[in-house]
Amino acid sequence: MLKKLTGEFIGTFLLLAMIVGSGIMATNISSDVGVQLMINVFSIISLLFVIILIFGPISGAHFNPIVTISELFLKRIDGLTAGLYIVTQFLAATAGTMVANYMFNKPLIFSSHHNRDGFPILLGEVIATGGLMAIIALLRKQNKPGLTPIAIAAWIGSACFFTSSTSFANPAVTFARAWSDTFTGIAPHSVLPFIGAQIVGAVMGLLFAKGISVNEEVA
Amino acid sequence: MLKKLTGEFIGTFLLLAMIVGSGIMATNISSDVGVQLMINVFSIISLLFVIILIFGPISGAHFNPIVTISELFLKRIDGLTAGLYIVTQFLAATAGTMVANYMFNKPLIFSSHHNRDGFPILLGEVIATGGLMAIIALLRKQNKPGLTPIAIAAWIGSACFFTSSTSFANPAVTFARAWSDTFTGIAPHSVLPFIGAQIVGAVMGLLFAKGISVNEEVA
Amino acid sequence: MLKKLTGEFIGTFLLLAMIVGSGIMATNISSDVGVQLMINVFSIISLLFVIILIFGPISGAHFNPIVTISELFLKRIDGLTAGLYIVTQFLAATAGTMVANYMFNKPLIFSSHHNRDGFPILLGEVIATGGLMAIIALLRKQNKPGLTPIAIAAWIGSACFFTSSTSFANPAVTFARAWSDTFTGIAPHSVLPFIGAQIVGAVMGLLFAKGISVNEEVA
Amino acid sequence: MLKKLTGEFIGTFLLLAMIVGSGIMATNISSDVGVQLMINVFSIISLLFVIILIFGPISGAHFNPIVTISELFLKRIDGLTAGLYIVTQFLAATAGTMVANYMFNKPLIFSSHHNRDGFPILLGEVIATGGLMAIIALLRKQNKPGLTPIAIAAWIGSACFFTSSTSFANPAVTFARAWSDTFTGIAPHSVLPFIGAQIVGAVMGLLFAKGISVNEEVA
Repeated sequence: MLKKLTGEFIGTFLLLAMIVGSGIMATNISSDVGVQLMINVFSIISLLFVIILIFGPISGAHFNPIVTISELFLKRIDGLTAGLYIVTQFLAATAGTMVANYMFNKPLIFSSHHNRDGFPILLGEVIATGGLMAIIALLRKQNKPGLTPIAIAAWIGSACFFTSSTSFANPAVTFARAWSDTFTGIAPHSVLPFIGAQIVGAVMGLLFAKGISVNEEVA
Repeated sequence: MLKKLTGEFIGTFLLLAMIVGSGIMATNISSDVGVQLMINVFSIISLLFVIILIFGPISGAHFNPIVTISELFLKRIDGLTAGLYIVTQFLAATAGTMVANYMFNKPLIFSSHHNRDGFPILLGEVIATGGLMAIIALLRKQNKPGLTPIAIAAWIGSACFFTSSTSFANPAVTFARAWSDTFTGIAPHSVLPFIGAQIVGAVMGLLFAKGISVNEEVA
Repeated sequence: MLKKLTGEFIGTFLLLAMIVGSGIMATNISSDVGVQLMINVFSIISLLFVIILIFGPISGAHFNPIVTISELFLKRIDGLTAGLYIVTQFLAATAGTMVANYMFNKPLIFSSHHNRDGFPILLGEVIATGGLMAIIALLRKQNKPGLTPIAIAAWIGSACFFTSSTSFANPAVTFARAWSDTFTGIAPHSVLPFIGAQIVGAVMGLLFAKGISVNEEVA
Repeated sequence: MLKKLTGEFIGTFLLLAMIVGSGIMATNISSDVGVQLMINVFSIISLLFVIILIFGPISGAHFNPIVTISELFLKRIDGLTAGLYIVTQFLAATAGTMVANYMFNKPLIFSSHHNRDGFPILLGEVIATGGLMAIIALLRKQNKPGLTPIAIAAWIGSACFFTSSTSFANPAVTFARAWSDTFTGIAPHSVLPFIGAQIVGAVMGLLFAKGISVNEEVA
């Protein structure tokens, strides 16, 4: 269990150190927001690929309370493990943000003023999280777990650019990004609506995956 | 059948939500058209890879009336299925454009004023669609279907940058992009010539693939 | 034989249509030369991957007189085939440039004024071509031919950015790029020195690969 | 042994010629530092993938004194080999920098004035090197050595953007980058603290990998 929790901690910690850190790096070195987002997204997809690959055999590579809760409903982990995973994810995400802030000479914690409000943006989160959960479920049903790291990286890589919310798709990530008033921040009052939209999207994505699965391949 | 149509719907819907959405995102955040097109193209190739991977075993991952008609000619699907696929693709593509417009606070439907006319641009569509159809056919004949998602993504990723039309290569995509007066739009009067060029390209690409196939590998 | 020559023709034709076309596209849409080169290079590596993958089993996917001559020395093809391949490559490359020029409303043929002279630039060609030939040879000796498309794409992708010549590494490509006075052009008087440097690099790369090959893997 | 040392020499030589060369190219063609870093990083990850792939079966593809020392502690190589590897790496790295300088018409050797000082930046090196060593160790324990080239490329690709030091993660690279007063340079007085931070990170990463390894996969 300790190894699993350590895996979740380090993976989620790196995820936030990277998201927040590459966002600060991007605004430090470019004034073109398009270039800034490209830097942020390439850093995200590269790291996502690596941490899912490396920690998959250790902790299952959740890094996301919604993934953990989904595994609990599928009875693939027990309630105690799920609870410890989720606490670990929130702590690790917050620690990752603090380290990113420190690396770039910012206050350890300073709350974001970046408002991300309104139904259109929340629809972006529904799509981003729904797609994420559906892809995980469908690859498992299609017996292609080895493709999960690249498929998740590709989905998030696309969704960061095409959803109006830039795809948080993860409550622990959303919470932790509130504590850095930088490129990737989110104002604290926007956090709960985002998490609500993520839950709606996750339920939709899982139901979709359950409904559409087929046992035989088409020719 | 319902699962297949749902797969075609969701895949084509995501394709258009992504193409149009990432185009709007790109123009919102950068004033360099080169950066805008890079954002649009990276979003396209990442999503193409994922949806072909995920929906391949479910619906065949056509998302394109020309692919469906080609499968009909090859007697790999029947006429009814082909008809339903094509209707689904057009409906899903239009719905995807509308959702992209909504996510970025645009009118649900507003027709594009982006003229894309003239033989040089239509030649771009011939090349883009011809290459697409030839790659699908050749990978099948070479028994490498697992490489289709990455090969299609790579072809479209290159063709978006080197063809003068930026590679629509899909009548449903072309039709649906007429209903967003944004970065990726196409004026309604340019749609039919594009579709004509795509058909010409598809026929050429399929004939080329048929002619060049070999049964044995070279050393 | 006709199928092999057709494969070489279409592959080399697409290679040049893409290099020259994406270069023109890049300068049409961005004024930042860094963005222009990134667009050009991403188009190059995506297409290289696809055409080596698709045409490998058909023609061997040379697309490069230096590769063909190397295969001749290794007695993997005969002299007549080698001669026909090379003529085909030069014709196809020139046709590709003409189509790229036409797609973007340029004269079919207009010679470049882009001087690329001096020993430091030629050293770039030596390194680019040497690495290309060594990678092809080493992957063959290591029995990893399936990795050739991605390895060549990665090498060229890196070399375009780090060699001072931006990595032509191919006499047919070099010759054909002289006929478009656009981003990727090369002044005619610079062509022969480039080809000379490519031959020097190829010999060095092949000797290196021959010398360094080991039959057993290290632990 | 000579083949192994040659492999280490050419790989490390190319690594530095590429890092320094693509950095100079980037500043020659763009004034947006974000675009410059993207060019530099894409060149880095492409080449890393290729040289680890190609030289892995020949020399083990260390290119990094910290990797060599780690292999020595694991008794996978003997002390003499380790010593020769490290000398080779420093010589090759310096030669690579000189060739990059020459290719772009700079003095063969001119020391950098780019100060990279302070604990926040050194923390970046700790993270970058720790992650690098942990990934190598974990992939070996998980019996996925074929994924090492892509995983290392992805880690460095992300870390270059999210660590405040831009991820040197290699004492030979750090030393050699002191001799080019260009984009990727580091002032000589910053070299030793960087190497110290890299050693601290490496020890932490290896201890982490040792502690977290599991023998059985989770479901």
